[in-house]
Amino acid sequence: MKRGVGLGRHVIAELYDCDPRVLDDVRVVETALIEAAKATNSTIINYYVHRFKPYGVSGYVLVAESHISIHTWPEYGYAAVDVFTCGEHTDPWRGLEVLRRFLKARHISIVAMVRGVGAKEAYSGYEEAAKEVT
Amino acid sequence: MKRGVGLGRHVIAELYDCDPRVLDDVRVVETALIEAAKATNSTIINYYVHRFKPYGVSGYVLVAESHISIHTWPEYGYAAVDVFTCGEHTDPWRGLEVLRRFLKARHISIVAMVRGVGAKEAYSGYEEAAKEVT
Repeated sequence: MKRGVGLGRHVIAELYDCDPRVLDDVRVVETALIEAAKATNSTIINYYVHRFKPYGVSGYVLVAESHISIHTWPEYGYAAVDVFTCGEHTDPWRGLEVLRRFLKARHISIVAMVRGVGAKEAYSGYEEAAKEVT
Repeated sequence: MKRGVGLGRHVIAELYDCDPRVLDDVRVVETALIEAAKATNSTIINYYVHRFKPYGVSGYVLVAESHISIHTWPEYGYAAVDVFTCGEHTDPWRGLEVLRRFLKARHISIVAMVRGVGAKEAYSGYEEAAKEVT
């Protein structure tokens, strides 16, 4: 991503018509999250997955470059996911593709956002000030 | 939220011109996340915050109703946040307001999405099938 354009890319996706057994399998969802994080070329800091009763899984991977999240509704074959990565070395779309493949989504709807547009340009001084005190 | 409209509300916000000291204070960010989750009337499952070197904090709260996340750039006075909650008992906007207040954001840009539109209508059968096997 070019300097001055933004700080990160945030891909938010609706995954419809997924395999409900996968959506309800906490281990597969965990693997999908980790593999998705790796595919974006991000560095994993922490992750957590939780299975709900009677069904459904939520999970989160915090990466040095932002995060990936998932919330599944096996009863509707649906998962809400988002892949947010910063830095030119990352690619959130590769993470989304991994999630789509693991969940076997047949229909997908995507909103892609550039985050932090103008933040660099609007603000200055802290970086220099911080250097002085650290 | 009415049945048939969607499964959850996802509020994605750019917080500009925040207090950089707050953005760089891992304990304040942690408190902001927890208070934001409470304000949405969600149930906290897990949370994690991480401070980067030389500066910046990332954190998330996984709630039974989805999640809240934050990534801060103290050097730009900027924070990327999102508040995603499901269920009629929750209000993501109250969570955003708590984050805005803690971070002292002077400018804010928001995208609000309804997630899982049509998921209930498009899919049926799993709920009944799951009842039979559990």
